[in-house]
Amino acid sequence: RINGDRLWDSLMDMAKIGPGVAGGNNRQTLTDADSEGRKLFQKWCEEAGMTMGVDTMGNMFMTRPGTDPDALPVYMGSHLDTQPTGGKYDGVLGVLGGLEVVRSMNDLGIKTKHPIVVANWTNEEGTRFAPAMLASGVFAGIHTQDWAYGKEDAEGKTFGDELKRIGWVGDEEVGARKDKIHAMFELHIEQGPILEAEKKDIGVVTHGQGLWWLQVTVTGRESHTGSTPMPMRRNAGLGMARMTELVHEIAMNHQPAAVGAIGHCDVYPNSRNVIPGKVVFTADFRSPNQDTLDGMKAEFEAKAPKIAEELGLTVEIEEAGHFDPVTFDADCVTAIRSAAERLGYSHQNIISGAGHDACWINKVAPTAMIMCPCVDGLSHNEAEEISKDWATAGADVLFHAVLETAGI
Amino acid sequence: RINGDRLWDSLMDMAKIGPGVAGGNNRQTLTDADSEGRKLFQKWCEEAGMTMGVDTMGNMFMTRPGTDPDALPVYMGSHLDTQPTGGKYDGVLGVLGGLEVVRSMNDLGIKTKHPIVVANWTNEEGTRFAPAMLASGVFAGIHTQDWAYGKEDAEGKTFGDELKRIGWVGDEEVGARKDKIHAMFELHIEQGPILEAEKKDIGVVTHGQGLWWLQVTVTGRESHTGSTPMPMRRNAGLGMARMTELVHEIAMNHQPAAVGAIGHCDVYPNSRNVIPGKVVFTADFRSPNQDTLDGMKAEFEAKAPKIAEELGLTVEIEEAGHFDPVTFDADCVTAIRSAAERLGYSHQNIISGAGHDACWINKVAPTAMIMCPCVDGLSHNEAEEISKDWATAGADVLFHAVLETAGI
Ligand SMILES: NC(=O)NCCC(=O)O
Ligand SMILES: NC(=O)NCCC(=O)O
Repeated sequence: RINGDRLWDSLMDMAKIGPGVAGGNNRQTLTDADSEGRKLFQKWCEEAGMTMGVDTMGNMFMTRPGTDPDALPVYMGSHLDTQPTGGKYDGVLGVLGGLEVVRSMNDLGIKTKHPIVVANWTNEEGTRFAPAMLASGVFAGIHTQDWAYGKEDAEGKTFGDELKRIGWVGDEEVGARKDKIHAMFELHIEQGPILEAEKKDIGVVTHGQGLWWLQVTVTGRESHTGSTPMPMRRNAGLGMARMTELVHEIAMNHQPAAVGAIGHCDVYPNSRNVIPGKVVFTADFRSPNQDTLDGMKAEFEAKAPKIAEELGLTVEIEEAGHFDPVTFDADCVTAIRSAAERLGYSHQNIISGAGHDACWINKVAPTAMIMCPCVDGLSHNEAEEISKDWATAGADVLFHAVLETAGI
Repeated sequence: RINGDRLWDSLMDMAKIGPGVAGGNNRQTLTDADSEGRKLFQKWCEEAGMTMGVDTMGNMFMTRPGTDPDALPVYMGSHLDTQPTGGKYDGVLGVLGGLEVVRSMNDLGIKTKHPIVVANWTNEEGTRFAPAMLASGVFAGIHTQDWAYGKEDAEGKTFGDELKRIGWVGDEEVGARKDKIHAMFELHIEQGPILEAEKKDIGVVTHGQGLWWLQVTVTGRESHTGSTPMPMRRNAGLGMARMTELVHEIAMNHQPAAVGAIGHCDVYPNSRNVIPGKVVFTADFRSPNQDTLDGMKAEFEAKAPKIAEELGLTVEIEEAGHFDPVTFDADCVTAIRSAAERLGYSHQNIISGAGHDACWINKVAPTAMIMCPCVDGLSHNEAEEISKDWATAGADVLFHAVLETAGI
């Protein structure tokens, strides 16, 4: 068993870095707080006897050697970056859970055949630089590094410049180790309501939803809200309103295995007495079913231009993020399920609603995920909460799944 | 007749201060550019023999003496501040048109019985600090100065601090001269399409639309766009979309004498994968008819909470700006109409679609407005355009209306 108190203390210590305004965290990727969080994680890992590798995307790999010189490492890990108003556990639990597994191995004098690596993947959240899971995506060969380096935040700063600025460009070529991964396990909070409702300690993640992010630019004409007659208006804000409703309707028509919403928008010039001349927003569609996912995208792409036309607007739709539905590795999934079984934790199969670094790593190595419940299914909210028992159970299962896979 | 070339050159010189990104201006109130524009106006006025008074709201009053020591001044004026993506004429024409009238009086050796004052009213636009026409409103006793000083911009800077920072807090008590105004004339571009469509040189402004700005805060719950099931969402962004449609519908149901739109919104936390937990936006309703105006507000206040309730949201509605429909002074209106007649300019009566400083000054002194056409009715857009002939005609009519009212 791992040490649940120590894990919890580490979670609380990490949460002191980049505090939010309401008890959670704002430790967005490639900020000074991100760098500080990385340093604390590095210090803890080095104290636990691990050595650090960092790649050119800033991905951190902390290694505990194995006993067999030919055996490929077993990975654990997730991400330390957060949403702007994020919780203390989303991502962090998977990184510090991995650290706790190593600390417990040290306590118990366990040596594994395969080396163990605990990874912190850069920019999982995708808020500051879209898309999400950016650096694990480059690692897995989904995106090029140049493309990722060029991604801009709201202030026009690039990923590449900001990674350099915070001092975390490593010397290891990104993806160099992608064919040398024996397996990878990611522990994560569910971020949804199912496990809590079903009173289960552990979610054995068999699949992940696919996603489309569509960045939509609606162009109308800025003009005066008072003196422009209604029939002369080309109101891009009204266009966005109708497209927001469209996204909702499309998702509602595919229940229960679909979701859709708009989380981000920029309105220009955003002045009370100016009819919006331009809006840029991102629609987020997800489904575990490939046809549903692609069908929702196609429906939006067909109907949004009609909404625009009726209002005298133009619309441009760009793909800003995408992953297909994921099926995790059967052996890794079995390792997780039997670990939960062995430890006496209640469990059930679950589909991940969110995207995770594990979704990309699954493309290059056998991968699976462990989920623990979170209160009210709430995440991407500073009020995100889990219990120490849930965290402990998740890390225990991670420990045993890794032990079985890495061999003693 | 005034000197149309000189007026035009001054308009173009002022437009060099606080240039926009697309040929217009960004000279928002209480910015460094605003201060620079004020200084240029002051210099020009002093060169024309006027003396400056500035009140504690930063309103500038440039005086040309009259011949009768007991006669109250005749005012002209408008505002030099612009929208963030504003035009070169909105407001500026009325201030520099007033200056041109004085310059022409000097050229022609005209002395008036009543003194002449050219005013520049602070923060007419209301973009940076709501509501619009803030300083003329304090001058007219509609708002208190303390209330105005406390108004905050998007960065939390207050009107009072920013006025001090740019160095334009005058020593004259605001409103001290409000009972000593013989009459006031404001020349302004129409900002709508009517005069151009009707091929009229001059709009004789008999009335102004009333306005309600309702600042609406919709509160839901931030949560993950991927892992929160549709029935569990409390999507404040969807609430805003439906209320945007409601504002549009309400205005459309009161055609032709009503308009309504949402120009400004802030979405929290504004992250692609977070369901908006809060949105704050301002609805803008206008009508020349008091019952229609108040009826639209009442309808929104009745229906918005129902939209919120259906989506599990709460809504709070605050009054963020208001003026009743305006009837301008009959004598001033007649002076404008007969000046246009005498000068041979085509003209028609018109209702102002926008709010203007003249609407507040009309509460404390006989006031009216002159309008000139603008291309495509476009304003609050950097592409706002007028012809030199239109500007000249407007300033000519201003000249003659003022001459008649101020007495020779
Ligand atoms: N786990 C998580 O919140 N990932 C962010 C990417 C996504 O939006 O699913
Ligand atoms: N003239 C003008 O654009 N004034 C701004 C106030 C308003 O929104 O009507």
